[in-house]
Amino acid sequence: MERRAFVRAGLAAGLTGFSTSATAITIDPVVARRSGPLRLNSNENALGLAPAARRAVIDGITEANRYPRSATGPLAEALAARHGVTPDHIVFGNGSTEIIRIAVSAVAGPRARIVLADPTFEDVFRYAEPFGYTLERVPLTSDYAHDIAAMRQRAYALDGPVLAYICNPNNPTGTLTDCTAIDDWIGSAPENVVFVIDEAYFEYVHSDRYWSSVHWVREKSNVIVVRTFSKIFALAGMRVGYGIAHPETTAKLRAYVTRNTPNHLAGVAALASLEDEAMIPRSLAANQRGRGILTDALDDLGIGRLPSQTNFLMHRVGGDLETYIERMREQDISVGRPFPPMLGYNRVSIGLPDEMERFVSVLRTFHERGWV
Amino acid sequence: MERRAFVRAGLAAGLTGFSTSATAITIDPVVARRSGPLRLNSNENALGLAPAARRAVIDGITEANRYPRSATGPLAEALAARHGVTPDHIVFGNGSTEIIRIAVSAVAGPRARIVLADPTFEDVFRYAEPFGYTLERVPLTSDYAHDIAAMRQRAYALDGPVLAYICNPNNPTGTLTDCTAIDDWIGSAPENVVFVIDEAYFEYVHSDRYWSSVHWVREKSNVIVVRTFSKIFALAGMRVGYGIAHPETTAKLRAYVTRNTPNHLAGVAALASLEDEAMIPRSLAANQRGRGILTDALDDLGIGRLPSQTNFLMHRVGGDLETYIERMREQDISVGRPFPPMLGYNRVSIGLPDEMERFVSVLRTFHERGWV
Repeated sequence: MERRAFVRAGLAAGLTGFSTSATAITIDPVVARRSGPLRLNSNENALGLAPAARRAVIDGITEANRYPRSATGPLAEALAARHGVTPDHIVFGNGSTEIIRIAVSAVAGPRARIVLADPTFEDVFRYAEPFGYTLERVPLTSDYAHDIAAMRQRAYALDGPVLAYICNPNNPTGTLTDCTAIDDWIGSAPENVVFVIDEAYFEYVHSDRYWSSVHWVREKSNVIVVRTFSKIFALAGMRVGYGIAHPETTAKLRAYVTRNTPNHLAGVAALASLEDEAMIPRSLAANQRGRGILTDALDDLGIGRLPSQTNFLMHRVGGDLETYIERMREQDISVGRPFPPMLGYNRVSIGLPDEMERFVSVLRTFHERGWV
Repeated sequence: MERRAFVRAGLAAGLTGFSTSATAITIDPVVARRSGPLRLNSNENALGLAPAARRAVIDGITEANRYPRSATGPLAEALAARHGVTPDHIVFGNGSTEIIRIAVSAVAGPRARIVLADPTFEDVFRYAEPFGYTLERVPLTSDYAHDIAAMRQRAYALDGPVLAYICNPNNPTGTLTDCTAIDDWIGSAPENVVFVIDEAYFEYVHSDRYWSSVHWVREKSNVIVVRTFSKIFALAGMRVGYGIAHPETTAKLRAYVTRNTPNHLAGVAALASLEDEAMIPRSLAANQRGRGILTDALDDLGIGRLPSQTNFLMHRVGGDLETYIERMREQDISVGRPFPPMLGYNRVSIGLPDEMERFVSVLRTFHERGWV
């Protein structure tokens, strides 16, 4: 009961307590802090659900015994409007991971290959496992971008279907790949190359070298743009992602999707989150402050780091990474996991400002002991 | 606000308003009735979520921004205990439909066939579509059971992998197949036959010729039992189903599952529903009363019907089925859909008792006009 009372108090606060003016964005979280370790290991949005999304979930309970239907159409309409396409360009998944799964399923076949960065988001090669794909892992460039020239070369080396997976900004490095190079490739690629452009962290990026690949989907049937509600909209636990592609492609992909997706509460929460205009600015402001605390400390301590365009960051670890992760766990902080071949780096997610203060204070003690 | 206030009132009622003694089960629904048509078309449980499940969803909102983790382990433990297996025998899906999808994906290959009843639940052949399966549709017997002898014959007619799909009780007919015949087949089948035994409506059955196929999964790796939280537990909108199979088989199936399944709120709601001992008796009591109202009226009007062991029922329709469905829609009642080849029957879901009274009164007017 105590916990529920706290949630309700949080909900009430959420409905009244925000300033959304451009000059003063309040980023205090409106949800109760969970017990257990500080979770800086899964690139979640620690702010919690948008107030409107929490309200939508509670309202949605009365219909959660019915198969999801009522939210799906309006959500597709809202997303289509947002992306300047029609709803038949949208395919839903249980998280963006399902869009990756269905793309991998749809392209699979004899002599099929996946060309991808090394390292990049693991789901694409996890889903490839049962299909006998050949994986063409292409190391990132020295500035941690996708090596588009090398990926093109590997894609064209043989015949057969190719899935080119580009995660931009890239997970786990948080770094950008120049969109001009991606556009050049998409514009000239043969039809046997299917592009899966994963833009899970799209909203976090500030760069004039970065834009969405959505502009291709009206003319090209071999481009699938992947988006998620798990990051900027903080709905990781509810599972809503979507693909944007040519209607011919979405029709083909839908044959592989689990039916009745997304679930009802996820659908209503996603729609409410889209309509809550304060959500993106709040998430960006919180992330910017938390990231600032982290980068200031890393720079102060002289610990090398990659530039981050996301809600996570990679920093250097002296010595064994597993030992570092274990030592953080002893301090009740969950960070990273090994991302080979980058075993000299830890990936840390950006939590709330006070959470980053705590992380940084632990990091300083590690530094004093020569552990980092 | 009006709607939310109503939900909260319902929640409060749900926490105090039930008698669970065997002699007096109160079945009044605790959730608000939705607006829009009376939905008797998707075999949903009109009672709505268990009070404990609604509470769990509200409590779970604070963690819905995190990837689902905390509920999945305890839910697997609880289900394993219920079925007398270890948690590695359980594989989760976004609804039982995902278990069907992954089984279809895992068995697919050159010369693969699916042997199934005609009619039966459509998802199995929908998922088969992109894989080039040969479908062997075997008509039901004259008493609407699976024709196991004929299915065996079709399964053994050729080499290659075979998925034998048995939905028991069968959807859309609501009828049983004798489990002795199923056990005989499973006990003697070669390894190339993978059995998918769909027990979505298991809890509704009262028959001494019926039992689960779960007892096979410890010794046989080619048996996958499919269960859902969508029916007796009323969680259709939240998407939780699971497969029970040999650990070798669940390991193989997991390679095809969408990651982070089930979603967090579905996980906590499912766990709370399992622990709410009043839920199954309430659902059964409501269904029994609603079904009684329906069968009394059909018998009174002399309208033929199939015996139902589920929360739905098939009854005869004179004339064109689509016309009948459309006329019901004009009365603001959604029923059935065509289930070829049984186009002389309508499938109607069992709603709450007062909903069935309404359906029956409309049915009587149709009968007076000679429409049914």
